[in-house]
Amino acid sequence: MTSVFTRDYAVRFGEIDHAGVMYYPALFDRIHKAFEDFWPEALGKTYAEVLGDDGIGFPLIDTKTTFSAPFRFGDTMRVAIDVVRIGTRSVTFRVRLGATGDERLRAEARMVNAVIAMESFRPVPLPAAYAEALGPYLVDPHVVESPA
Amino acid sequence: MTSVFTRDYAVRFGEIDHAGVMYYPALFDRIHKAFEDFWPEALGKTYAEVLGDDGIGFPLIDTKTTFSAPFRFGDTMRVAIDVVRIGTRSVTFRVRLGATGDERLRAEARMVNAVIAMESFRPVPLPAAYAEALGPYLVDPHVVESPA
Amino acid sequence: MTSVFTRDYAVRFGEIDHAGVMYYPALFDRIHKAFEDFWPEALGKTYAEVLGDDGIGFPLIDTKTTFSAPFRFGDTMRVAIDVVRIGTRSVTFRVRLGATGDERLRAEARMVNAVIAMESFRPVPLPAAYAEALGPYLVDPHVVESPA
Amino acid sequence: MTSVFTRDYAVRFGEIDHAGVMYYPALFDRIHKAFEDFWPEALGKTYAEVLGDDGIGFPLIDTKTTFSAPFRFGDTMRVAIDVVRIGTRSVTFRVRLGATGDERLRAEARMVNAVIAMESFRPVPLPAAYAEALGPYLVDPHVVESPA
Repeated sequence: MTSVFTRDYAVRFGEIDHAGVMYYPALFDRIHKAFEDFWPEALGKTYAEVLGDDGIGFPLIDTKTTFSAPFRFGDTMRVAIDVVRIGTRSVTFRVRLGATGDERLRAEARMVNAVIAMESFRPVPLPAAYAEALGPYLVDPHVVESPA
Repeated sequence: MTSVFTRDYAVRFGEIDHAGVMYYPALFDRIHKAFEDFWPEALGKTYAEVLGDDGIGFPLIDTKTTFSAPFRFGDTMRVAIDVVRIGTRSVTFRVRLGATGDERLRAEARMVNAVIAMESFRPVPLPAAYAEALGPYLVDPHVVESPA
Repeated sequence: MTSVFTRDYAVRFGEIDHAGVMYYPALFDRIHKAFEDFWPEALGKTYAEVLGDDGIGFPLIDTKTTFSAPFRFGDTMRVAIDVVRIGTRSVTFRVRLGATGDERLRAEARMVNAVIAMESFRPVPLPAAYAEALGPYLVDPHVVESPA
Repeated sequence: MTSVFTRDYAVRFGEIDHAGVMYYPALFDRIHKAFEDFWPEALGKTYAEVLGDDGIGFPLIDTKTTFSAPFRFGDTMRVAIDVVRIGTRSVTFRVRLGATGDERLRAEARMVNAVIAMESFRPVPLPAAYAEALGPYLVDPHVVESPA
């Protein structure tokens, strides 16, 4: 059975732009923060420990993101993260953004993250313990549903 | 002959993340700022005038972005913007990010922006004056070079 | 007896600057987010409802902030908010920033917020229900302790 | 005669908050960016060189900031920086924020920055070359005028 990391976040006053909706770079910032929160659930370590203790980092190398409806101040964003592909030198995450009390999928991102050694900033193989921790989140990428 | 909007920006102290490189949401923020700066050159109006006077907005609806090398504090980022497609209800921009004194292309984004009326937030046809202003920036998208 | 709003927040990967510590504008951003979270506890309304339903806003007009120790990635910040002064046209909050598992007070801010009508952006008297809700948080400002 | 560092910056689309004005943490971010731009004029070195080559940093330890009028999208902010006090272990800067074509002073900040060694993060005496470079910017702090 497949796991999905799901968490709710308030859309913040300062994340709104001049057009009255959430500024898209703030959406990417939110995706990164949810990615940080993913690790304690999946691996039992904070992302600070992943970087600092294990010396492994996951810089973004590619993203395909679609925005279909805006977020506004007062919305509670629901972020769902699962995994599309576990490679030897990269992991592809799927991030779906919805809002509580709303069926629509408002944004969906594919995030390809390289696996690097923090000391050298060079690619390294994904450690086995990480592949194992990510395994339960691996899904059929063709099934797309709103996280809300 | 094809025009390319090109501008240099300092990578900022606060844009650096815990890994010592430019935080990728800050890269998207920079892309938006360059997009704001594009309009006075292309159209002769600020983006504030586009939104406020003409009542037209260009929210991002889709992006494909590839990051191939990081930016660090002290780098001068060179942003190059041109246009891949001028549709009736959307415009696709190409944004290439390099650094002065460095041949490499460090990131490249395709940004699909809808055309909307700011009052209704609903799609509207791209005004003719806008299509005309964007025309000179239209390029063969298959030719990819570093902006530096 | 005096109430203090207290909440813990993760210091985020992207909030770190080139010097490896939390960028001070990110500290102010965090203070604003805690201020947003204060309202449901104190008043029983979200800040979105304060602004949207009651039409009241609290823009910052003055701050005196002291930073005595930095925050790093991996820290859990503890924010404590109480009230120093309830005026007719402004409220002065005290915000103390510490970290869990650390006795030190790392930053302390006095934030003077005007009371305005959102429609006109002009000063209005603090509604009685707001003064009543803020009352329990009113403290002797000379007693300064770490929130941790 | 006294020098004042003066520079104009566009108020950005993403710096606007839900209330339609510039988010105050974005104002502090702008102050930091202007502070970065101050060094090449005053010292002939970028702030990256100050930190990286000279190993000196200037973290903020105290600020008193007053906000008297908001900034909106489309404004051109004028930032003026001079120096109120050159201490042996700290420098106090005055930052005034106005807008082009507007006489009003919209915000004014006193920023007390410690002098530290980047390697140890501990206080060090201000190098003589820095005191000399800051000297021309030293002003009588009681004279307050709009930078616009």
